[in-house]
Amino acid sequence: MGVRHIGADVRRLEDPRLLTGRGRYTDDIRRPGMLQAAFVRSAHAHAAIRGIDLSAARALPGVHAAWALADLGSPLADGPMAQMAPSPLIKQDRVQHVLAKDEVCYVGEPVAVVIAESRHIAEDAAALVAVDYDTIPAVVDCRAAMEPGAPVAHRDAEGNLAAKLAVGFGDVEAAFTDAPHVFTVDLMQHRGGAHPMEGRAVLAEHDPETGKLTVHSATQSPYLVKRLLARLLKIDEQDLRVVAPDVGGGFGPKAVFYPEEAVLAVAAMKLGRPVKWAEDRREHFVATANQRDQHWRLEVACEADGRMRGIRGHVTHDNGAYLPYGLILAATALAPFPGAYALPSLSLTLDVVYTNTTPTTPVRGAGRPNAIFAVERTIDCIARNLGLDPAEVRRRNYIRPEQFPYVTGMKARDGSPVAYDSGDYEHCLDTALEMADSAGFAARQAEARSRGRYLGLGVASFIEDTGLGPFEGVHVRVTAQGGVHVTTGAASQGQGHATTLAQIVAEKLGVELGKVKVTSADTDSFGYGIATIASRTAVTAGSSAHLAATEVHDKAVRYAAALFEVEPDRIVLEDGMVKVAGTNQSILIGEVALALAGTIAQPIPAGLSPGLEATGYFEARATPHSSGSNVAEVEVDIETGAVHLLNYIVVHDCGRVINPKIVDGQITGGVVHGIGNALFEEMVYDAAGQPVSTNLGEYLLPTATEIPPIRIGHVETPSPLNPLGIKGAGESGTIPAIAAIVAAVENALQPFGVVVDRYPLNPERVVDMIDAARAATPA
Amino acid sequence: MGVRHIGADVRRLEDPRLLTGRGRYTDDIRRPGMLQAAFVRSAHAHAAIRGIDLSAARALPGVHAAWALADLGSPLADGPMAQMAPSPLIKQDRVQHVLAKDEVCYVGEPVAVVIAESRHIAEDAAALVAVDYDTIPAVVDCRAAMEPGAPVAHRDAEGNLAAKLAVGFGDVEAAFTDAPHVFTVDLMQHRGGAHPMEGRAVLAEHDPETGKLTVHSATQSPYLVKRLLARLLKIDEQDLRVVAPDVGGGFGPKAVFYPEEAVLAVAAMKLGRPVKWAEDRREHFVATANQRDQHWRLEVACEADGRMRGIRGHVTHDNGAYLPYGLILAATALAPFPGAYALPSLSLTLDVVYTNTTPTTPVRGAGRPNAIFAVERTIDCIARNLGLDPAEVRRRNYIRPEQFPYVTGMKARDGSPVAYDSGDYEHCLDTALEMADSAGFAARQAEARSRGRYLGLGVASFIEDTGLGPFEGVHVRVTAQGGVHVTTGAASQGQGHATTLAQIVAEKLGVELGKVKVTSADTDSFGYGIATIASRTAVTAGSSAHLAATEVHDKAVRYAAALFEVEPDRIVLEDGMVKVAGTNQSILIGEVALALAGTIAQPIPAGLSPGLEATGYFEARATPHSSGSNVAEVEVDIETGAVHLLNYIVVHDCGRVINPKIVDGQITGGVVHGIGNALFEEMVYDAAGQPVSTNLGEYLLPTATEIPPIRIGHVETPSPLNPLGIKGAGESGTIPAIAAIVAAVENALQPFGVVVDRYPLNPERVVDMIDAARAATPA
Repeated sequence: MGVRHIGADVRRLEDPRLLTGRGRYTDDIRRPGMLQAAFVRSAHAHAAIRGIDLSAARALPGVHAAWALADLGSPLADGPMAQMAPSPLIKQDRVQHVLAKDEVCYVGEPVAVVIAESRHIAEDAAALVAVDYDTIPAVVDCRAAMEPGAPVAHRDAEGNLAAKLAVGFGDVEAAFTDAPHVFTVDLMQHRGGAHPMEGRAVLAEHDPETGKLTVHSATQSPYLVKRLLARLLKIDEQDLRVVAPDVGGGFGPKAVFYPEEAVLAVAAMKLGRPVKWAEDRREHFVATANQRDQHWRLEVACEADGRMRGIRGHVTHDNGAYLPYGLILAATALAPFPGAYALPSLSLTLDVVYTNTTPTTPVRGAGRPNAIFAVERTIDCIARNLGLDPAEVRRRNYIRPEQFPYVTGMKARDGSPVAYDSGDYEHCLDTALEMADSAGFAARQAEARSRGRYLGLGVASFIEDTGLGPFEGVHVRVTAQGGVHVTTGAASQGQGHATTLAQIVAEKLGVELGKVKVTSADTDSFGYGIATIASRTAVTAGSSAHLAATEVHDKAVRYAAALFEVEPDRIVLEDGMVKVAGTNQSILIGEVALALAGTIAQPIPAGLSPGLEATGYFEARATPHSSGSNVAEVEVDIETGAVHLLNYIVVHDCGRVINPKIVDGQITGGVVHGIGNALFEEMVYDAAGQPVSTNLGEYLLPTATEIPPIRIGHVETPSPLNPLGIKGAGESGTIPAIAAIVAAVENALQPFGVVVDRYPLNPERVVDMIDAARAATPA
Repeated sequence: MGVRHIGADVRRLEDPRLLTGRGRYTDDIRRPGMLQAAFVRSAHAHAAIRGIDLSAARALPGVHAAWALADLGSPLADGPMAQMAPSPLIKQDRVQHVLAKDEVCYVGEPVAVVIAESRHIAEDAAALVAVDYDTIPAVVDCRAAMEPGAPVAHRDAEGNLAAKLAVGFGDVEAAFTDAPHVFTVDLMQHRGGAHPMEGRAVLAEHDPETGKLTVHSATQSPYLVKRLLARLLKIDEQDLRVVAPDVGGGFGPKAVFYPEEAVLAVAAMKLGRPVKWAEDRREHFVATANQRDQHWRLEVACEADGRMRGIRGHVTHDNGAYLPYGLILAATALAPFPGAYALPSLSLTLDVVYTNTTPTTPVRGAGRPNAIFAVERTIDCIARNLGLDPAEVRRRNYIRPEQFPYVTGMKARDGSPVAYDSGDYEHCLDTALEMADSAGFAARQAEARSRGRYLGLGVASFIEDTGLGPFEGVHVRVTAQGGVHVTTGAASQGQGHATTLAQIVAEKLGVELGKVKVTSADTDSFGYGIATIASRTAVTAGSSAHLAATEVHDKAVRYAAALFEVEPDRIVLEDGMVKVAGTNQSILIGEVALALAGTIAQPIPAGLSPGLEATGYFEARATPHSSGSNVAEVEVDIETGAVHLLNYIVVHDCGRVINPKIVDGQITGGVVHGIGNALFEEMVYDAAGQPVSTNLGEYLLPTATEIPPIRIGHVETPSPLNPLGIKGAGESGTIPAIAAIVAAVENALQPFGVVVDRYPLNPERVVDMIDAARAATPA
């Protein structure tokens, strides 16, 4: 029996390179004659542009071009960018031009570009561009934006509503009629940002001889960039290559197409020189999509024992100044309902609202953290009001293992009914509570309180729809040396795809992991791809790798069966060889590859086609649902308002685990992301729409010192929806984290009667909450 | 009905680029930090190396390295290069080291390499390398090499015989017993060279981060180079990319792997810099493989009416100093027997002999011109001796149309019986004679002789085994813009593959020719390939393009049939659209491609897989045979010995013609190649093995002023062996040309009794022949 790779706790193949500084990110790529770009960005949240004077910028030595929109010429100057996700539900579709035309709608909107010999010259020249603005009142708060008479985010718009969404099932009216209890939660969820280590970066090159345009971009979606660039530039896709080289984190904002990608491409074509732009951190705050502000107001009807009868409510969703990605982010905030619970009825509406702030797109979890926060806060509200154990209220409402596949009543994007495939929610919760020593928590809490210290325990459960379709593809080729080359369109931003795919392929082909090399995210290397988003790559690319490797395996078996004149079922692939089981007859897998490569002196054996290779496309037509529970234990310093995370437990079910180390890394990173959301990160705008926290001194990211021990347990309920039983894991650390931490803080502050309805829980807000609760409580 | 592309006389898509100097040949590629290599080559035909002093070369400013074999280190220094075409028939297998180890065996053999900032520094430094030689007697003539006591080409060898080959069928002894006539021909066929416009060139680059080695080479066989480089360097093929960019002619010598390709690769890896080497013309004469000298002695037994009973004989084949390509060249000189004729019996033997001359490999026709020359000279010998019309002797011996498939009695490389697939040899001959006005020739000749001028008419028929297996592959992808990207491993050296493949694909997909773009010969773009040799690309890659396009066509049909809810047989592809025949229902083919590319908002339609693309591999397991006849009319100036070509007729059957312009171009070029062989090109060695014609002043290539009108007629007997009925055409201009021209000269000099038994027929040799014939004829 050969070595098993799937499920083995192998180290990431990428890490020796990445951890010793040998990654090759877009900004690491240098080309002879390369120029650098800097963008002139709007200084106002809302203004008309009366004129742009580029003459001083153009006169600066070393400047090759300074352009406003009109200078870009047709087709880029002809109109706004394409809507990436068109929907008939969009009432007012606003997508920006690649450079502002005659109106700017958020601080940071690109207005002009300067291309120069160096970045510093380009920045100096950008500062010389004189834009004549005529300011217009801005709208900043999404609820205020829906008030009558509010300023409009676009001067020629009819109000600020972009779209209205609604979801639901069951008889909500009946559920609330005569309900034993109805409770209300009112929640403000903050936008924050994604803040990958690497900002965005683009390098565009055009070869006038071949007509080929090559764009390197720090993107999650090279195929989307290719498709939209070709459409915007009116060029044939075969003349366009998009590569996502090493990318230092994505988390969602890098999944969409940006103006800079189009501007750089045109610059390379017009100037005949490679042109690069790498975002700086200050730009990243305003020029790269943020998360979103959402206000949630929910009512829940429940039985006396805490079992829910129905939920109804309304969400106001701030999409920022534009709608580049359609309604995907907004819709994804409703899609996770009813969470882990067998909810009989639901009715939710959501307003997608424009404001004069940076546009928003999905960030890790893509709205699911918001939905799960709302659901879990609702459960905690029931427990608090009914005096029940929050864990017990969850148990009473969970979908039970025997109910799978569980049809929730929701509809998927294609209109088909949503069905959860598998899970064991109660087992996850109970395991997490046990790992957290929840049984001993009451004593710990009491002991602490006796010393004037405030401990809290919070739990949160979640489900996540993962493995979004339609597909990714993987090509597998065996070399004459017994190496295995795996090529895929699935882009990596550091998630360890190369290792995961290598494990799947090595397992099937019986080769050492080190023999497998993965190339990804180069549209010239693999023809089709979707994007690395939505916890989908292990499911889609992983399953495709398995399909492709299986086809290669079967071809090697047929070759060897004919060679050794035995039945195919006696052939096994292991230790780099293709063997007749139970004999010493074998051939190196590389020798099989060589034989199938053919030479003029060596024909392909009859019945086989050239090449030991195959392409697999796994089409994800149904959705594997990951699930689990988190438990957070915190201490709140009621004097300073500081929240200390003491312990954090995740019990997680992503079906069959390919690489425990990578899954644990994803979960840990996801929890840290949630910790940032819950406690630290705040993107503050003033009333005029000026962002006031555009550096990492004012916008606080969690660092190692803020992170508690995060312990992870795995429950594996394999998905029946793909050959390896995989579910996604990339976002599920984040999704319940805010809810668990907020619940723990609320639990810690229970003596003061604090009910937490918003985040981040930074020290000032914690102190304010305590003060407000004390003030509201009769002494 | 859409536009037809196959058979249309379209202009080559490549030409605007190539004819305006925008080709990109290996030597056009520049890289930052690129170094240049020059080779130190043996000055002696045979010598031992006592020592190599590289110190002066290394001391020259700008020199980065000066290396002999040992300096290259393992594995390159460990032993000789691999035999490219191993065969159990090889008795003594001599393949050179990448740099000479301790013995040089031909003038031009690489001994050391210098790598410097520029080519001129590298050449200056190469001149400073002091090689201490100890000369050894050389063997130069291949027949002398087989004499007892002849010097040996390799000092430790047992004589000069590399291998003995034998072919035959039927009862030769019986054929000659009591034969009415037996005649003998004794022929010396000269080696010459290939002389593409571009010599060889190599650019090697190594990326230490990724471990990827990229080699651009002016090769016909990028996949062979990849396979052998990986094996020689002991690296995995997935770490190696070989690209044949624009290549300025191949003709055979560029089909093999050369020492320079390995040395440059190692240099790039050792120095961490791109390294280039481009051959100069003087190097090309000695460092790139030549054709071969062959001595043929045949006997033919025939009836009184000229019908052949059998042929027997012996060939001495000069393979030069090494056997890089095994016995392929030697074997190919026997394979075309029995030519166009229904020969009852055959027995031929061939000695493959080493001499101290540049190694030999196939050149256009690859031995077939020699075999056809021998067969056609034999026919002419019969006609001359029996006083018959040479055309009539051919007619009496031809295989007749009703005999196809005609099993000749020969064996193919895989041991299977050779069968000619289709043809109409007599029709080709008669058409050629009519086009040449052969009926009026006797009068023209008589009239000329009356004025002391000597006209001659010669005819030659041929067959060619084309479309050598095992395969080429082609990938076809349709873009959202309706463009079609065709990718293939089949390398082009100017033959117009891009146009030919585009025609085949455009025909099937109903798109404009200009929408099709072809990428070829990049091992990273297409996984498997063989080589552009042996008149095989139209058959193998052309058929593969048809197969791939058919699969794409059928997928588009399935998509549209479902979309329009009609039966698939009602869907047609034309004018860039997928239409319901007889209605105005249609969709752009690019829209189908877009739909099948998928996005997160747009799943792949049920029943279809992602991508409007397909890969086709046509496996050529049987051999289409091209055929035809040439007629040359010449005037010989008996005073100066100059041969003037007055008229040249080709009637040619390569089955279905894809592009008449390209086929005519191939035939014209091939005939010119044959004219050079017949009349001008002579690679002269002196008795010590020094080549004395290593420039284009002494080695005469035919130029436009020497070329007569070449008129071409087509007969199409489609091959039943592939879907489009294609046969190869790349070499068939050359194959009969020498025979036709020599016959014409002999015919012109018939009054003097000249029998031509060798070529080239340069003026000196023609005058000598006339003088010798006059001297031998009783006055």
